[in-house]
Amino acid sequence: MVLQVLKKPMLLRLRDPLTESERDSIFRLCKELGYSYQFRAGSKELLELTGGGAPSHRSLFEDLTGILSVVDNGQARELNMRPVGGPDLVVEVAGARFGGEWAGLIAGPCAVERADRLQSIAERVKAAGACVLRGGAYKPRTSPYSFRGLGEEGLAMLAEARAKTGLPIVTEVLDPRDVDAVGAVTDIFQVGSRSMANAALLTELGKSNKPVLLKRGMSATVREFLLAAEYVLMGGNERVLLCERGVRSFDKVTRNLLDVGAIAHLKRVTHLPVLADPSHAAGRRDLVRALARASMAAGADGLIIEVHPDPGEVHSDGAQAVSFEEFERISADARAILKLDGRRLSQAEVAPRSDSTAGGGARKSTSSLKVD
Amino acid sequence: MVLQVLKKPMLLRLRDPLTESERDSIFRLCKELGYSYQFRAGSKELLELTGGGAPSHRSLFEDLTGILSVVDNGQARELNMRPVGGPDLVVEVAGARFGGEWAGLIAGPCAVERADRLQSIAERVKAAGACVLRGGAYKPRTSPYSFRGLGEEGLAMLAEARAKTGLPIVTEVLDPRDVDAVGAVTDIFQVGSRSMANAALLTELGKSNKPVLLKRGMSATVREFLLAAEYVLMGGNERVLLCERGVRSFDKVTRNLLDVGAIAHLKRVTHLPVLADPSHAAGRRDLVRALARASMAAGADGLIIEVHPDPGEVHSDGAQAVSFEEFERISADARAILKLDGRRLSQAEVAPRSDSTAGGGARKSTSSLKVD
Amino acid sequence: MVLQVLKKPMLLRLRDPLTESERDSIFRLCKELGYSYQFRAGSKELLELTGGGAPSHRSLFEDLTGILSVVDNGQARELNMRPVGGPDLVVEVAGARFGGEWAGLIAGPCAVERADRLQSIAERVKAAGACVLRGGAYKPRTSPYSFRGLGEEGLAMLAEARAKTGLPIVTEVLDPRDVDAVGAVTDIFQVGSRSMANAALLTELGKSNKPVLLKRGMSATVREFLLAAEYVLMGGNERVLLCERGVRSFDKVTRNLLDVGAIAHLKRVTHLPVLADPSHAAGRRDLVRALARASMAAGADGLIIEVHPDPGEVHSDGAQAVSFEEFERISADARAILKLDGRRLSQAEVAPRSDSTAGGGARKSTSSLKVD
Amino acid sequence: MVLQVLKKPMLLRLRDPLTESERDSIFRLCKELGYSYQFRAGSKELLELTGGGAPSHRSLFEDLTGILSVVDNGQARELNMRPVGGPDLVVEVAGARFGGEWAGLIAGPCAVERADRLQSIAERVKAAGACVLRGGAYKPRTSPYSFRGLGEEGLAMLAEARAKTGLPIVTEVLDPRDVDAVGAVTDIFQVGSRSMANAALLTELGKSNKPVLLKRGMSATVREFLLAAEYVLMGGNERVLLCERGVRSFDKVTRNLLDVGAIAHLKRVTHLPVLADPSHAAGRRDLVRALARASMAAGADGLIIEVHPDPGEVHSDGAQAVSFEEFERISADARAILKLDGRRLSQAEVAPRSDSTAGGGARKSTSSLKVD
Repeated sequence: MVLQVLKKPMLLRLRDPLTESERDSIFRLCKELGYSYQFRAGSKELLELTGGGAPSHRSLFEDLTGILSVVDNGQARELNMRPVGGPDLVVEVAGARFGGEWAGLIAGPCAVERADRLQSIAERVKAAGACVLRGGAYKPRTSPYSFRGLGEEGLAMLAEARAKTGLPIVTEVLDPRDVDAVGAVTDIFQVGSRSMANAALLTELGKSNKPVLLKRGMSATVREFLLAAEYVLMGGNERVLLCERGVRSFDKVTRNLLDVGAIAHLKRVTHLPVLADPSHAAGRRDLVRALARASMAAGADGLIIEVHPDPGEVHSDGAQAVSFEEFERISADARAILKLDGRRLSQAEVAPRSDSTAGGGARKSTSSLKVD
Repeated sequence: MVLQVLKKPMLLRLRDPLTESERDSIFRLCKELGYSYQFRAGSKELLELTGGGAPSHRSLFEDLTGILSVVDNGQARELNMRPVGGPDLVVEVAGARFGGEWAGLIAGPCAVERADRLQSIAERVKAAGACVLRGGAYKPRTSPYSFRGLGEEGLAMLAEARAKTGLPIVTEVLDPRDVDAVGAVTDIFQVGSRSMANAALLTELGKSNKPVLLKRGMSATVREFLLAAEYVLMGGNERVLLCERGVRSFDKVTRNLLDVGAIAHLKRVTHLPVLADPSHAAGRRDLVRALARASMAAGADGLIIEVHPDPGEVHSDGAQAVSFEEFERISADARAILKLDGRRLSQAEVAPRSDSTAGGGARKSTSSLKVD
Repeated sequence: MVLQVLKKPMLLRLRDPLTESERDSIFRLCKELGYSYQFRAGSKELLELTGGGAPSHRSLFEDLTGILSVVDNGQARELNMRPVGGPDLVVEVAGARFGGEWAGLIAGPCAVERADRLQSIAERVKAAGACVLRGGAYKPRTSPYSFRGLGEEGLAMLAEARAKTGLPIVTEVLDPRDVDAVGAVTDIFQVGSRSMANAALLTELGKSNKPVLLKRGMSATVREFLLAAEYVLMGGNERVLLCERGVRSFDKVTRNLLDVGAIAHLKRVTHLPVLADPSHAAGRRDLVRALARASMAAGADGLIIEVHPDPGEVHSDGAQAVSFEEFERISADARAILKLDGRRLSQAEVAPRSDSTAGGGARKSTSSLKVD
Repeated sequence: MVLQVLKKPMLLRLRDPLTESERDSIFRLCKELGYSYQFRAGSKELLELTGGGAPSHRSLFEDLTGILSVVDNGQARELNMRPVGGPDLVVEVAGARFGGEWAGLIAGPCAVERADRLQSIAERVKAAGACVLRGGAYKPRTSPYSFRGLGEEGLAMLAEARAKTGLPIVTEVLDPRDVDAVGAVTDIFQVGSRSMANAALLTELGKSNKPVLLKRGMSATVREFLLAAEYVLMGGNERVLLCERGVRSFDKVTRNLLDVGAIAHLKRVTHLPVLADPSHAAGRRDLVRALARASMAAGADGLIIEVHPDPGEVHSDGAQAVSFEEFERISADARAILKLDGRRLSQAEVAPRSDSTAGGGARKSTSSLKVD
C-alpha cells in the first residue's frame, strides 16, 4: 500500500482559460519544487505532477491564482494528516494519555483566583477522574477592562497545586513573549480560540517540547484548524491536541454551537488527538453534561471542563462552571461511553512532588511520545 | 407550586422613551386581553400585568414596537412549553414510542423508488431495531429538475410495505392540498426543513389526528422551531415530534452542523419528544454513526436514518445512506447509550396487516396519546 | 458566438473510485438524455458529454451520487441563467419598470390594516417616487398568535388604493390555494423568505401571467435562490424579480445581514431584475436609508421599502418602517446613484382607475415583457 | 443635555433568583467602584447605581455571573463610544484624512514582492486618487507553507516607495515584538482580521503614536470589534480606524459577506472613522467595484483596495486584485458618492521626500489629531 501511495502523482485543477503569466508562474513553481508535469491528455484543466512531494507543496500551489484546487495530494502529505491506515498518536503527559485506547479529562476553574481554592478544586477533580488540571493565569478577554488573570502569580499557584496533587497542568499562553515563562510551569500549553490564527505564537510553540492544546477558532473551518496545528508541527513539536469548542452561530441557546461532526471528521483525517470543550460550547452549566456526553460519543479523546464549587464568586465565565457533583457524573458518563468502544479514561500517575522543575525541562522529550 | 405560578404576573420590558401611540397601543392591548397593568414602582420600562393569561399573549405583546421583550410569561404558557416539573410527552404509534423512557429508530430509503426494494429494506431495518419505516413519496428538492418522488405511486408502495411488515410509516407532505391523500396512508406526517415555516401546511396538520414529525428549518432558531410546532399544537393536534437535523454553517465537512446543544436544550424547555436526523446532518455516510451516537448521548428520543443497500442506484441523497450493517451498529449504539439512563428502544408491535385502513381513521384518537 | 456555445460539451466530474452501480447509473442517464459520452483521455474523473442539452440536465446529473459536480454546463443553460452577453430582462407592470436602464421603488406599509391609512400612504409614496404599492393582506408570521393580516378584506383595500392612485400593487401569497384570489387583485405576487423553498407555491405561480417578486430565503445560497426562481420560470412565467433581503447572521445590530455581494453577483449571472429589501435587512428604521443606498450602489434594479407615518400603531414590524420624509430622502438617493450609471427611476404611468379588472386578466400577457 | 447625561444612573439587570455569593459579589464590586446602589422599587431585577462612572465599569459588571446585562451605561462611556451628539474623529496622516467631511482611498498590492513593481503601483494609484499606499511585508497566512511576506526587506521597499511618491504607507504588524521595527517605517499600523482579538498586539499598539487600521475579525460581533479598538484606545492611542472586511458566511459567491449594515451602525455609535475592504470581502476582482460603491454609499470614510497590474504573478490573493483602470473607476465612484453628502476624497499632501524619518517619530503627535 505504501508503494501505491508513492506512485500517485499530484494533480492540480487549473483555471480555464489561464493568462500567460498565470501559466508561467505555475510551471516555474513546478520546476522549483522538483516536479515534472504534463496535462492529462486532452485536458487543459488537469495538470499532473510527478516528483518527490513535501508537506509544503499543497499550500504553495494553492497560493497561485491560476490554480483552482489541488485535487490530489500525491506524496505531499502535510504533517497534520493521518498516514493512510496509520494509528492514532497517543500524547502522554505524566500519566495522562490522549488518543488510541485512551481518553482523558481535564478539569479546573476558568481562571486561577485563589491558591487554597485551586488546591481544593484540584483534589476534588482528581478524585473524580481528572488527569490534568486546567486554570487560566493569562485570560484572553473580549473587553480590556475584564479580569485578565493573575499572570505570574497565577502560574505560581498552578505550580503549587501541581506539586501537591501530582496533577499535570494546562494553562493558556497568549503572547509569544510569555512562552518561556509559562513553559517553565505548565505541562501542556493551551492556545485559545482567539489565538488559533496567531502564527507568531504557534511558531514559538513549535520550538517547545511541551504538548499544545489548540482550540478551534470561533469560525475556523476544519482545514484552517488543521493548518494552525501545522504551524506547531512544522516547528518540530509533534504533540498537538486539537480541541473542538463550538463555532459561532445565529442561535443563542448555547454560547457556541458544538460541532460534533468536526470531531468525528477529524478522527478520520488526522492522527492527532481530538478533545472537546463542552463548557465553552454550552456557556451555561445545565447543558455541559449533555455536550460532554455527545462529544465522547462522537469519538473525542478527552474533555476539558470548567469546574467551580461557587460560580458566583468568580470573575470569568462563572455561568458555565459545573459543580463537583456534576463533574463526577460527567466522568462516569465518559467512562461508560468509552467502554462501548473498549477504551478507557487515563489517570495521572505521578506521585505528588514538592519541586516544580519536572515540567520545566528544555530538551525535546521523545520518551513521552508514543504511537499506539 | 401551581398556585405560585398562577400568581406570577406577566412582565413587559418597554422601549424608553415610548411614543404616545406606542403607549396607547400597549395599554389598549392589555385591556383587550383582560389584564390590569401597572408600572413597577419608579420604572417606566417594566410594566407588570395581572390577569388570566393565555398561550397567545406572549406573541401578541411581542408584536408591538413599543415592547422590547416579554420578560416573564406569567401564566401565558405556550402549548409547546413544558409545564414546570412536567413529564415528557410519550407519542405512541403502533407500538413505536418516543419520549419518556422510550426512544425509537426510524429508518428507510430517502425516496421510495421500487416496491420490492422498499419491502426488503423495511424487513431488514425492522429486524435491526427500527420501529418506523421512512420513505419519501413527495420529495422537496432544491432544483425543479431533480427527482421529486413517485407521488401517489410511492404512497401505495409504502402502504404495501406497511401491510407486509407491520411497521408504521412516516412520509413527507409538502402541500396543504395533499394532507388528506398522504394522511390516508401514513402513520406520521413528516414536515421537512424547507416547510418548517409553511404556516398553511402546519395549520392543516393541526387538524389531523396523526403525529407530525417536524424538522428544524435550515437556520431556524430554537424559538422559531418551537413556534412552528405551536402552529400544529394550537390546531388541537398535540403530538408533534421535533427533529433536529443540523443547521447551515460556513464549514463543509458536514452538510449541516448538527446542533446537539439544541437537542439538550429542547428536552428542558418542551415536553415534546426530540429526535435527530444524523443522515441529513452528515451528508456523508461515514459520519452518520458518529452523529447518531452523539444525538442519543445528548438526550434524543430517537433517530431517523437513511438506509439503502445500494446507494449508487438512487436519485436522491444517496451519498448519505448507510448500509444495513452500519444501521445495525447504530441500533446497538442507541440501545447501549439509552441503557446508561435506564431507557430503551421501542419496537413496532402490531402484527402485519393486509388492509391499509388502520392508519386512515378520521377521528381524533386519544388512546395513543400517553403522558409518561 | 451561439455556435461556439453549441459546440461546447458538458463536463462531469466523477467520484474516483466509482462503484459499478454508480457508473451504470451515470451511463444510463446519459443515454436517456440523448448524450454520447467519453472519458477525457487518461482520466477516470472527467466525463465529456456531446449532445443537445436542456435546462434540466445539470440538476439531473447532480442528483447522482457518482457525480461530484457538473464542471461545465455545455448547452444545458438553466432558464435563470443570463445568456452569454445577453441583456437584462426588463419587467414592466403598469409603467413600473425593473431592469436594464430602469429601476423602481416599491413602498407601503408592512401589513394592510386600515383603508384610509393605506390610501394616504399610497398617495404619499407615489408622490415621492414609488411606482408600486406594497402591503400585506396575508402575513407570514413566526408565531401563530401574531397578527396574520386581514386576508380578503386586506386585498379589497389594496384594490381600492390601486384604483384611486393608479399604483400597481404587490402583495404576498402564502398558500398555493390562494393564488387565484390574490391574483385577481395583485399586479405582482410576492413570495416571502419563508416560502422561497415552497415548491407547491412556486409551481402554481409558474402558471400565472403576473410577475413574481421572489425573496431570498433566510439562509439560502445564491444557487438555491436561482433554482427557486427556476421553479417559476420552468412553468412558463418568465417574469421573476429576485429580491435580496439579508441573510441570517450571528450579529444582531441588524436583523439580517444584507448581502450586497449577492446583488452584484446576481446581476452578472442572471438576466432577471434584482431588487433589495433594506427594511427587513435592517430591522430598525435608522439604518434603512444606508442599506437602501448601498443596495442601489451595488447595482440593484429597485427597492422595496416599508413606510408608515405612525409605526407605533401597527401590529407587524413597526420598528423598521420609515417615515414619509425618510422615504423621500431614499428616493432622492436612489435617483442620484442611478444617474451615475445613466439609469433612472421608473414611474407608474397608468391613470387612476375605478375598476379593478385591469390587473386580473387570465391570459399570458407578452406585451408587458420587454427585453432591453 | 450634558447635565442630563451626568445625572443618569447606571442600571444593572440581575439574574432572578440570585445566589448569596452572586449578590455579595455584585454589592462588593459596586462599593469598590464607588457607587451607591438601590433596587428600583419593587424589583429584584433592576439595580440602580449612582456615582462617578468610568469606561471600564460596563465590562467589570458584565463579568459577574449574577448580572444579566448592563441596561444603561450611565456615565460609564467606553472610549470607543461616540459622545452624545459628538462629531466624527478626523484622523489625518500626511494629508490623508478619514472621518468627518473626508474620506480616503488606500491602495496597493496585497504583498510587497518587488521594489520596482511597488514603485510603479504607488505612482499609478496616487495618480488615480489614493492617499495611502498599502502593501504587506508580514503576511498572515492560513498555511505555514504559504508565502509570508518579505519581512524587513519588504519594509525597506515600502520606505523607498514612500520616499519617492510622498504617499504615507500602511502595513500589517503581526507580532507584538515587531511593533518597533514596523513602526519605524509605517505611517499607519494595520491589524488584520486574524489579529483582531490579539490583546498583546493591541496593547502594544496602544502605546504607539501611529494610527491603527483595525480590521474586524472573521466572525466578530460589532461589540467585540469595538472592544478590540478599546484595547488600543485605553493605552492612550486615540487614532483607531475601524475596517469592515466581510464576515464568514455559508455562501461562497463572495469570499466574505460584506456587512454594510455594520458600517452604517458603527457610524452612529462610534466617533472613530470606519473604512471598508471590498477586496477581501469579494475575493474576486469582478465584484470589488460593486462592493466599494456599496460601502461608500453606506457611509464609509474610506476604502482599502488591492491593486496589481498582473495578478497572475503574485503569491498572495491575486484573484482579488483589480487593475489600475478598475481602480480609477472605483476612485471616480467614491468621489461621486461622497459628493452626494457634500464630502470629498482627501489627497496625500506631503512632497516626496528622500528621508524616511518623518514617519518614525516617537512622540505622541497631537497635531495630526483633529476633531471635525
